[in-house]
Amino acid sequence: MNKFVWLAAFLCTRLLSSAQNQTLVFQTDFGVKDGAVAAMKGVARSVSSELDMFDITHEISAFNIAEAAYRLNQAAPYWPAGTVFVSVVDPGVGSDRKAIVLKTKTGHYFISPDNGTLTLVAESMGIEAVRVIDPKLRKPGSDASYTFHGRDVFAYAAAHLASRKTPFEKVGPLLSTEMIKLPDLKASAANGVILGSIPVLDIQYGNVWTNIDASLLREHEIKPGTTVNVKITHDKDVVFEGKIPFVNTFADVKEGETLGYLNSLLQFSVAINQGNFAKSYQVSSGEGWRIQITKEQQR
Amino acid sequence: MNKFVWLAAFLCTRLLSSAQNQTLVFQTDFGVKDGAVAAMKGVARSVSSELDMFDITHEISAFNIAEAAYRLNQAAPYWPAGTVFVSVVDPGVGSDRKAIVLKTKTGHYFISPDNGTLTLVAESMGIEAVRVIDPKLRKPGSDASYTFHGRDVFAYAAAHLASRKTPFEKVGPLLSTEMIKLPDLKASAANGVILGSIPVLDIQYGNVWTNIDASLLREHEIKPGTTVNVKITHDKDVVFEGKIPFVNTFADVKEGETLGYLNSLLQFSVAINQGNFAKSYQVSSGEGWRIQITKEQQR
Amino acid sequence: MNKFVWLAAFLCTRLLSSAQNQTLVFQTDFGVKDGAVAAMKGVARSVSSELDMFDITHEISAFNIAEAAYRLNQAAPYWPAGTVFVSVVDPGVGSDRKAIVLKTKTGHYFISPDNGTLTLVAESMGIEAVRVIDPKLRKPGSDASYTFHGRDVFAYAAAHLASRKTPFEKVGPLLSTEMIKLPDLKASAANGVILGSIPVLDIQYGNVWTNIDASLLREHEIKPGTTVNVKITHDKDVVFEGKIPFVNTFADVKEGETLGYLNSLLQFSVAINQGNFAKSYQVSSGEGWRIQITKEQQR
Repeated sequence: MNKFVWLAAFLCTRLLSSAQNQTLVFQTDFGVKDGAVAAMKGVARSVSSELDMFDITHEISAFNIAEAAYRLNQAAPYWPAGTVFVSVVDPGVGSDRKAIVLKTKTGHYFISPDNGTLTLVAESMGIEAVRVIDPKLRKPGSDASYTFHGRDVFAYAAAHLASRKTPFEKVGPLLSTEMIKLPDLKASAANGVILGSIPVLDIQYGNVWTNIDASLLREHEIKPGTTVNVKITHDKDVVFEGKIPFVNTFADVKEGETLGYLNSLLQFSVAINQGNFAKSYQVSSGEGWRIQITKEQQR
Repeated sequence: MNKFVWLAAFLCTRLLSSAQNQTLVFQTDFGVKDGAVAAMKGVARSVSSELDMFDITHEISAFNIAEAAYRLNQAAPYWPAGTVFVSVVDPGVGSDRKAIVLKTKTGHYFISPDNGTLTLVAESMGIEAVRVIDPKLRKPGSDASYTFHGRDVFAYAAAHLASRKTPFEKVGPLLSTEMIKLPDLKASAANGVILGSIPVLDIQYGNVWTNIDASLLREHEIKPGTTVNVKITHDKDVVFEGKIPFVNTFADVKEGETLGYLNSLLQFSVAINQGNFAKSYQVSSGEGWRIQITKEQQR
Repeated sequence: MNKFVWLAAFLCTRLLSSAQNQTLVFQTDFGVKDGAVAAMKGVARSVSSELDMFDITHEISAFNIAEAAYRLNQAAPYWPAGTVFVSVVDPGVGSDRKAIVLKTKTGHYFISPDNGTLTLVAESMGIEAVRVIDPKLRKPGSDASYTFHGRDVFAYAAAHLASRKTPFEKVGPLLSTEMIKLPDLKASAANGVILGSIPVLDIQYGNVWTNIDASLLREHEIKPGTTVNVKITHDKDVVFEGKIPFVNTFADVKEGETLGYLNSLLQFSVAINQGNFAKSYQVSSGEGWRIQITKEQQR
């Protein structure tokens, strides 16, 4: 009978282990035209064949840390606790920038160069602890390679963490300082004018996404069903100015009409129904782009 | 002994469940430059970590339902019965368009807005039943989001169906009307002239794909090894006209020569061997593009 | 008791089988805008639902066998032994070119048309044996399709091999001749001048990758920390000529400065730190592109 007990224990262990969330999600600015992303996944697969691997995007603009931060925060909260994300947008590869692992209060893990990429997920999901990856936790034999830490360090360490071969507590010492963060660009309000920025476009459709939360609008009694004045500026130039309906969804206006709505992150956005607002008005995103919203006055 | 029986039953259940076809295949017009597709997959992964997830494409032209229908039909028949496909090309998001699930006679499942996307798979695989997704079968807590049903409704419901957490019979009531279908654009023949359309290009290579089936050609005794007269028109303009060899495969003509052949869906297509026919003759696809084929007369 | 022994044996078999490396990695020049890659994966999934499927890239330039060879070699060595790779860049589809399977000395498998695609992995990983795929090992019922061997032959055979349904020894007879190989383009050295080619660009960043190995540089005492003279030519035109620092990594020079470094394959490369060298100097890759390196003389 003892043999069966042993067997049962073995089987249960294996089944439970495979039932755990061994999920690894990649994001980079490498593109998918060459073999770089596949080399990362090969390294991870060599660490453990139990990992399930997915992608956010590999089309982050080269070296664009702010975009990396935004895309990570757009996708990560929808994944289950225990998921390990690895983001490699790494203009400082080979410098003394640190390689870190963030564990959030929600139980998600994020591996990245310490360069600001984790700013938004840290804000939205809360910091439980941050560790610096031990320099020894890298692909064996990769010491002569200085320029592809995505493959040699980040993918390797991420696979160790996701497969539980190296638990979070063992990846390296706690970070003794604060994580590097991007400058705070929160939306603000004064005298009834709500002022925000345009961190990214919803590029596929040409919709303009802002950092103005639904809650900030609600505080100023700007609700779906009303009309708002919108002004979009680039540095000192006014690029768009007009009254637009603030509605729940695209279908609330006719094809070709401009609308304001809450996007899938519940932030104020501007679009043309089945058109391309960004293209029509030459609106882009990032540094220098600002948006003002005021409530249309009832007469 | 009872414990072992229980244990064995538990293990068998788990093993059999993992042996089932829990496959979820995505198609959208979202592109892969942002976090939208990954958010959908995160929602699905949160429903069940047993799902295997794949993609057809996320590069359907924005709002192009006809293209979505075509690409779905190009790939789906090659997947095993039980596979769940979710296609989100959804210009009517937030309107009263329905969210539906089609079960085909072949045992495949398709989830999509009811907007015509499922026209071709319904034709080629047969309709077993169509259900409307119960409005309660959506990501818990997502009611305030009106613009991303791909994440909040379709991915969530698809994961429930693929993981068997919600079987087909429970996703919602039977659709009481017909599914919305795209206008029928079947190829036809009269007086020896076969007339068809150009639903899509084989874009990577510039080959022109038509909706003219091998069987229609056979009925008119047009077979590989013969020469055909081909005329391609856009509205009233003749864009290409010429005699070309109808052959089995590219290697049957020299590099740089034009050929007619049956593509991988066994439909008549026109190409230049190792060249780009569409670019050379400025041929595109969709509305207004037509092709005529006649058999070259023997003299 | 016998029942339990039988049950235990069954469970162990299943668990061990799922623990094997059933990994299938795809590479093509199909792009991902249509359903072709998904059709291949559907065929593979229909052969076995136990396979884990991944991608190198589907953005190989159309018909570019040299690029396919390079990308395969860039990624494959990082995957575990037993991984099955299938590469379909197949300008000769439908001709009498053979469909082959290479087993390397490292225990990796590569399936491809016999057209030179496997040249570099054969060199770097060693040839154990090459077999020709038996014409009967193709998707049942696909005989009428001549133009999509990626789906009907390669994906099907690869899935059989990766799932162990058809072991290597049974895929077909040994290739009686040599595999077709691309012309040898090894870097060389004479009179202190190292001469190499530019097989590909690191396109995402505009870095110029050469075929000059670290070892060849070491033999000529060119080491990180020195300055080198670099001349890049296209046919007879000099496209770039200058002295640049040969360093370990990007961060060793200032932003905007040019550097030489060893890329992730430990081959000499030229870049601008956080800039785009290829764009700045109009450098491309492939036929006609050459690079010369000489050691800067100390005075």
